[in-house]
Amino acid sequence: MSNNFYTIAYTDEGVSLLDQRLLPDEEVYHLYKSFEDVAKAIKDMVVRGAPAIGITAAFGISLAMEKCSIIEQEKVDDFFNRVLHIFASTRPTAVNLFWAIDRMKRVYEQNKHLGLEHIKIILKNEALKIYEEDVLVCKKIGETGSSLIKEGFRILTHCNAGALATSKYGTALSVIRHAHMEGKNIKVFADETRPYLQGARLTAWELHKDNIPVTVICDNMAGYLMSKGEIDCIIVGADRIAANGDTANKIGTYSLAVLANYHKIPFYVAAPISTIDIKISGGSQIPIEFRPDEEITHFRGKRIVCDGVSVFNPSFDVTPSDLITAIITEKGVVTTNYEENIKKLFL
Amino acid sequence: MSNNFYTIAYTDEGVSLLDQRLLPDEEVYHLYKSFEDVAKAIKDMVVRGAPAIGITAAFGISLAMEKCSIIEQEKVDDFFNRVLHIFASTRPTAVNLFWAIDRMKRVYEQNKHLGLEHIKIILKNEALKIYEEDVLVCKKIGETGSSLIKEGFRILTHCNAGALATSKYGTALSVIRHAHMEGKNIKVFADETRPYLQGARLTAWELHKDNIPVTVICDNMAGYLMSKGEIDCIIVGADRIAANGDTANKIGTYSLAVLANYHKIPFYVAAPISTIDIKISGGSQIPIEFRPDEEITHFRGKRIVCDGVSVFNPSFDVTPSDLITAIITEKGVVTTNYEENIKKLFL
Repeated sequence: MSNNFYTIAYTDEGVSLLDQRLLPDEEVYHLYKSFEDVAKAIKDMVVRGAPAIGITAAFGISLAMEKCSIIEQEKVDDFFNRVLHIFASTRPTAVNLFWAIDRMKRVYEQNKHLGLEHIKIILKNEALKIYEEDVLVCKKIGETGSSLIKEGFRILTHCNAGALATSKYGTALSVIRHAHMEGKNIKVFADETRPYLQGARLTAWELHKDNIPVTVICDNMAGYLMSKGEIDCIIVGADRIAANGDTANKIGTYSLAVLANYHKIPFYVAAPISTIDIKISGGSQIPIEFRPDEEITHFRGKRIVCDGVSVFNPSFDVTPSDLITAIITEKGVVTTNYEENIKKLFL
Repeated sequence: MSNNFYTIAYTDEGVSLLDQRLLPDEEVYHLYKSFEDVAKAIKDMVVRGAPAIGITAAFGISLAMEKCSIIEQEKVDDFFNRVLHIFASTRPTAVNLFWAIDRMKRVYEQNKHLGLEHIKIILKNEALKIYEEDVLVCKKIGETGSSLIKEGFRILTHCNAGALATSKYGTALSVIRHAHMEGKNIKVFADETRPYLQGARLTAWELHKDNIPVTVICDNMAGYLMSKGEIDCIIVGADRIAANGDTANKIGTYSLAVLANYHKIPFYVAAPISTIDIKISGGSQIPIEFRPDEEITHFRGKRIVCDGVSVFNPSFDVTPSDLITAIITEKGVVTTNYEENIKKLFL
């Protein structure tokens, strides 16, 4: 893959993010020098995608401490906890955010006795490690998952579970990238993914950059393609997976899973195990984020729904595991007995 | 209902249409003084919706003859046939267009011996009759269908099968309007209906004008609402219904029918019998129109899919009748044995 762009970078000056809101029109990178601005960038969806949100939060937490010049340890603790709280309040559904926050917190607690200057270095290393690990994990997901993709497969994906949602390869798109790199003649259909158009704007953009054939469809066309026998499998990412395999992902994923079930098409979820929230037993416990009305009522500032009409804008839905053919992780593919087999991934 | 707007009108000067492309921002009416401009308005979707297209074509055909000053009968015939051909080439899927053309042609053939001046009056009367009949037919569909709507129902609809798609009451929205007028506390969810946003722009606009509670959702959110038990029934219109009940309607209808089937939610089609194409036995014979790429790649002139990426833009899909709970027509409700019972509608 060419990857002649980057999604997230930690530089000497701060955290740099590709502004995904402006794609595909403009490729603009912003440098954030304060952790508050990094948190706001997550909330405002400059960066999105569960793994990318986790990495960005880790970078932001490290950045906060880098700039910290408090002397009393107790006040450093307070500040650190406030930083964690601010990042935890940005987006509620993606568990990778809380996973990254917990990991930074653990490292902080274990090392804070070494003093602020040391902890700064340790936290920065940890944040960079989270990034580097994600690169390898996504690569592994791609290598593992590509065995499920046969020559000539026409693959439907939803939202963006790609390089733009992770450190580098993506999750669902890593599977697609690896199948493509192995020389399989695959073709991708990307749901445009309303209201934020991650499929139309982001997935199409990054696959096109890698010369992987991609066709954009509106979300409501997926069933038509399935009924015509034009889809061989569906692969999506995940924002949070419960212990029983129930999967929260971008709104519309559930409908695709029901349609796949009706048409007997394999439905795959690709995600790192950091997306699995082993603490919750089922999907009904996953908090669903609701986004602002304007995402539906307006399009780039132009009103498309008349004033006075209400809208409903859940950002995610939950697909029960009985509609999922397999969950592809860096530790292997889980296909049945999700509750039992997911546990084994953590051994 | 207030209906403080009109969709189509035949005036002394020509055919007047509300430009539905500009809604809900602007309520602009265009007066078309030539039949070519009326045909272009259909093709360009100034007016849309199966019954409305039929009425507009009838008005356009009458307008063409009104302005005709050819003397030789044979040349009048040629001109008339050319006019019919131009209207038949505007949109391929909605059968009401061909139904209206056939009706105008039949009246022409029966009366052409009376001479051009007489035929002008006869054709104009026939066109106005098509309009007036549609008002009554849509009213009857609403009265008949509203018996299926219970107090407190939360009804999902797709695209726009309303006043804007017909002469006045609509088809699916006539059922909703009548249930509302009868005092049932109903609530409507309108799929925004990509790519043309007929639900967001048109259905929300016209229901809001009638003070019927309406909430706009993205197409990919319908399954989520169904899974939460938030939808009591689905009602859509139709562009063409085969003799066996298979129904072509706006792209996305089929997916809703599969989702309704999975969630055991009644799925209703509301349409005049002029939408039934008794000549074709099944849905696979219905021609599906493909619309220009720009409807997906651009949004009001702004690119949302990067250059070089292909898109796929079918305007309709076909729902097999086994996924349809009932077809509501002005001649009654058909619920089972579609092939046999549809035939009876024409007796």
